[in-house]
Amino acid sequence: MKQRLLTPGPTPVPEETLLEFARPMIFHRTAEFRVLLAEVLADLQTIFCTKNLIIPLTASGTGALEAALANSVPAGAKIICLIAGRFGERWKNIAKAFNIESINVTVPYGQAVQPDQLAKALADHPDAIAVCSTLSETSTGVGHDIAAFGKLIAKTPALHIVDAISGLGAMECRTDEWQIDINCTGSQKALMMPPGLAFLSVSDKAWQAIDKNANPRTFYFDLKKAKKNLETSDTPYTPAHTMIRAMRVSLKKILAEGIENVWARQKRYAEAARAGFQALGLELFPAQPNTALTVVKMPAGIDSTTLLTKLEKQYGLKLANGQDTLKGKIIRLAHMGYIDQFDILAALGGVELVLLEMGHRIEPGAGLSAAQRVFAKA
Amino acid sequence: MKQRLLTPGPTPVPEETLLEFARPMIFHRTAEFRVLLAEVLADLQTIFCTKNLIIPLTASGTGALEAALANSVPAGAKIICLIAGRFGERWKNIAKAFNIESINVTVPYGQAVQPDQLAKALADHPDAIAVCSTLSETSTGVGHDIAAFGKLIAKTPALHIVDAISGLGAMECRTDEWQIDINCTGSQKALMMPPGLAFLSVSDKAWQAIDKNANPRTFYFDLKKAKKNLETSDTPYTPAHTMIRAMRVSLKKILAEGIENVWARQKRYAEAARAGFQALGLELFPAQPNTALTVVKMPAGIDSTTLLTKLEKQYGLKLANGQDTLKGKIIRLAHMGYIDQFDILAALGGVELVLLEMGHRIEPGAGLSAAQRVFAKA
Repeated sequence: MKQRLLTPGPTPVPEETLLEFARPMIFHRTAEFRVLLAEVLADLQTIFCTKNLIIPLTASGTGALEAALANSVPAGAKIICLIAGRFGERWKNIAKAFNIESINVTVPYGQAVQPDQLAKALADHPDAIAVCSTLSETSTGVGHDIAAFGKLIAKTPALHIVDAISGLGAMECRTDEWQIDINCTGSQKALMMPPGLAFLSVSDKAWQAIDKNANPRTFYFDLKKAKKNLETSDTPYTPAHTMIRAMRVSLKKILAEGIENVWARQKRYAEAARAGFQALGLELFPAQPNTALTVVKMPAGIDSTTLLTKLEKQYGLKLANGQDTLKGKIIRLAHMGYIDQFDILAALGGVELVLLEMGHRIEPGAGLSAAQRVFAKA
Repeated sequence: MKQRLLTPGPTPVPEETLLEFARPMIFHRTAEFRVLLAEVLADLQTIFCTKNLIIPLTASGTGALEAALANSVPAGAKIICLIAGRFGERWKNIAKAFNIESINVTVPYGQAVQPDQLAKALADHPDAIAVCSTLSETSTGVGHDIAAFGKLIAKTPALHIVDAISGLGAMECRTDEWQIDINCTGSQKALMMPPGLAFLSVSDKAWQAIDKNANPRTFYFDLKKAKKNLETSDTPYTPAHTMIRAMRVSLKKILAEGIENVWARQKRYAEAARAGFQALGLELFPAQPNTALTVVKMPAGIDSTTLLTKLEKQYGLKLANGQDTLKGKIIRLAHMGYIDQFDILAALGGVELVLLEMGHRIEPGAGLSAAQRVFAKA
């Protein structure tokens, strides 16, 4: 059976990129590899919409989050965490591990933190060193108004730190224009790569905080050392260099299309997926959805675990369940990276068939037609 | 021109393993992937010669060293670092980053730390929480007597922590018999994989220290959390799962041969390489060499940077130079992992030709014959 991976990370990887991984090993301390690394980081600057230095890490995306906090916020200092789901909670948990006091602005799952909530937190805590937020809260499908957050934070001494792991490359994210001081991402979402690499962009304001922090409490993720090594396009430790080589191929695909065109296409996919699900009577879960993935609630009497198992076993369609308390209640369809409009039709087609099988009364093709009307407009 | 990679990491990767990387993406939170991860970790236990739990990390080898120290040694505590080169120095530098006091037992480059030096340090510092050493000091080619260190350390409350990144799988290393409490390695040396994964085995004695340490000062490398996740063959964050899938293929090759047979073959390669170089008048650099790589000094008037450049440009043979103060003075030939006896002949053949070109008077074939006599004995 043909398999389709439609989970919000890992996402499918283009065949040309996968074939790069099959090429023979190279040594990494060479002029050739330095050129390659510099090219990949320059391409990432275009995708991040930033002139800031981008630091590559051999790690999961969480490694970039740890690097951001440990380097820029001293022990005992205070930060504001904007929490709308599991990934927002991760900021709070990293802060705890590094003895950083965290002021938590929390909204229920499915809601987004609003700019006025941040404004109040900043007013109440003028001593906050940083504000940590999440571009795409993958656990619920919520998107945050990072541009609005940036305007508020830039007026204060606090750093604007963003977890853009699952959003960057799938939805509008203008690092410099939105005044993001540290923007973190991972390889395995919209950047069309397997997991294993993480990246963060660092602004001048952030470097000042990092330089002032005498005790970064990390050796492996020491950003000052990484910056110094990048002066010669080098990394402090042996990087996952075959991943960097393969990533060049995926990034060139994004650049060939143009990052703003990718955002527009992703937005269309999100609209089509939403229209399709809604035509089947499935409600959107997030109040403020993002364009990297679509998350919908189950109709009464339908358990998402059963539905997802049938989709996978009977049709080779792999979508994601909710996590923790949301398990069984929602399904999550990713449409970022190497996923196209016909993959979305495949997902909707499978969901229609399984819903019918499970006794949910719908008109076959209703979801497909609704999605197709969105595609036809483009 | 045919290229041969003979550097001490990254090392060549078998073609079957590389092809695994070209397979389509999978989701990692599935029963299939849990089975795969459990199998890879069980295979690693055989290669580590341990019954201890092995923790996988998405990181360079240095990430495993950081995980070992940050989790098991509290801030302000004292450790003993055995330093015979750049990788021994790394232990000291990680300790500094984590506010750990480091008692340094240092020998000149090319020498090995001796067990009596460790015995004295343990006697002088009965409050040391851990002893950190290096199995194969890749920067100089020295090997340490980890078995002897283990006997001394086991009599004390200190933990025996070993950087086996470039040695494990290439030379005898019996984690349990040698009483190694935390044994760290990386994927890109003798384990025949690209860089990007690190692993550490953790003994009961080490878990006791880790459990007692209330403040591990790391989130990404939190070993308690990793252990808890492994109860269901899971990882706390998205692992480099296509690397784990590919690694299964390389590990099966090692297991098919048998780890003790691999060690014996590596020993033979080291003897052959040493005999070959010595027949060309090149002296061994390490006083106590290990079997993962062979490091030799240059004869008078020959600069190793020139020799290595010619080897690469004219013959496609990539060996490594010395680092820092050793640059230009030594060459380093790796013979671990997916490198066989005929690759060693290729390296010796190239070195003979370049030495002749550079005016060093040798008999063509002298090095090759000396190596071949070792191979013929087997």
